[in-house]
Amino acid sequence: MRRILLTVEYKGTDYAGWQRQENALAVQQVLEDALEKMLQQKVVLIASGRTDAGVHALGQKAHFDYDGNFPLDKMSIASQSLLPPDIAILKAEEVSPDLHAQYSAKKKTYRYQTYLSRENHPLLNDTFAQIPYAESYFDFSKVEEAAKYLVGTYDFIGFSNKGSQVRSTVRTIYDVTVKKEGTFVTFFITGNGFLYNMVRIIAGTLIYVGLGKRTPDVIKKILETGDRTLAGKTFAPEGLCLLDVDYT
Amino acid sequence: MRRILLTVEYKGTDYAGWQRQENALAVQQVLEDALEKMLQQKVVLIASGRTDAGVHALGQKAHFDYDGNFPLDKMSIASQSLLPPDIAILKAEEVSPDLHAQYSAKKKTYRYQTYLSRENHPLLNDTFAQIPYAESYFDFSKVEEAAKYLVGTYDFIGFSNKGSQVRSTVRTIYDVTVKKEGTFVTFFITGNGFLYNMVRIIAGTLIYVGLGKRTPDVIKKILETGDRTLAGKTFAPEGLCLLDVDYT
Repeated sequence: MRRILLTVEYKGTDYAGWQRQENALAVQQVLEDALEKMLQQKVVLIASGRTDAGVHALGQKAHFDYDGNFPLDKMSIASQSLLPPDIAILKAEEVSPDLHAQYSAKKKTYRYQTYLSRENHPLLNDTFAQIPYAESYFDFSKVEEAAKYLVGTYDFIGFSNKGSQVRSTVRTIYDVTVKKEGTFVTFFITGNGFLYNMVRIIAGTLIYVGLGKRTPDVIKKILETGDRTLAGKTFAPEGLCLLDVDYT
Repeated sequence: MRRILLTVEYKGTDYAGWQRQENALAVQQVLEDALEKMLQQKVVLIASGRTDAGVHALGQKAHFDYDGNFPLDKMSIASQSLLPPDIAILKAEEVSPDLHAQYSAKKKTYRYQTYLSRENHPLLNDTFAQIPYAESYFDFSKVEEAAKYLVGTYDFIGFSNKGSQVRSTVRTIYDVTVKKEGTFVTFFITGNGFLYNMVRIIAGTLIYVGLGKRTPDVIKKILETGDRTLAGKTFAPEGLCLLDVDYT
């Protein structure tokens, strides 16, 4: 048996998230079905983590154990005809049998994309969240200030929604980078792990800071008190994309 | 009665094109239904032209005649809650009763977006056509040379598919600009009008030139002979977007 690690890209719009479930189509199921057809054996994928309905991935990682000789460098191309256009295997590599896609993950990077506009923009809506305000209402320097307060090791319970049971709500954020290009505001967040809806709540809170609905030091207060009601709303799933998972 | 000209953006992925039809949902129908609810009167939209299933628009234009007082500068925002996220009215303006969205159009600009990659990229597929070759196979300078031969007034019948009856197949192309940024190749084409599938066949032919399946002077030969078989294939609808329609 060899342990195979896949790098997977998907557009989450039409799926009920990563994880296989009873009454809705999930990315995991579509991938497992395609791999089973291609490899002629049962495949169970373990991902770095679930993504919610509507959330995308450019670099989701998932492992499975494989007893066969299909060439790994041909898996990406060979799987294309078995997968729908919104799911792709970018890479397949053999890794140590000790590597576990979820438990061995050291770092994850998410991107959250938004655009500032009172008008809705249909060509952006699948992968950007609309902030329905004119650009002039948005104070980018305050967002940059607030983003700095997130970096470090803290109890992030105030930036999470109930929905999953975790032993600890302490996480380390290594970096938060915010970019503004015209009406586009994009957040990049790297950490050792994230609580349920944490990235979307961080994005929502930073956007509230930009719009003057919160002051930058609200971040410090939420980290001190764990008070979810101080944070912004959970922003829409379509803006979120799992960019990368790092195992070293 | 006032003549109102709308600027409309839509993501064509889930529609059977612009034009209302019996057994499939079209952009025109969704827009007319929303406008009728908002304005409380019958609305018939005349667009600058049809777009095919899967084709997008950032600046489609359509007119209708309106007998009422709904403020034009509020139509964009007010229509948002009546429209799905993949269709939006960007602007509504009063124009001369002589202006006809189709017959008065002087110039149209289309964009055709592609990416070069053997791997499928799910997050691009709705709005980019994949060219399933590595970047190194693509000779961009040959594409630039070929693009120049398209500019002018010619019989473009060799760049059209049967499907619509037109009196003349002579059109004027004012400009063809090709941009390459990394693995992305984008075509911008401006002309006084386009035959059925003409932009997608031009894109397909220029891509064939880039891949060495045709030489740049094939463009001249197609314009001289009208021979459709010399041109490249009709490239996929999802890469195409109607950017702008000009009435002056």
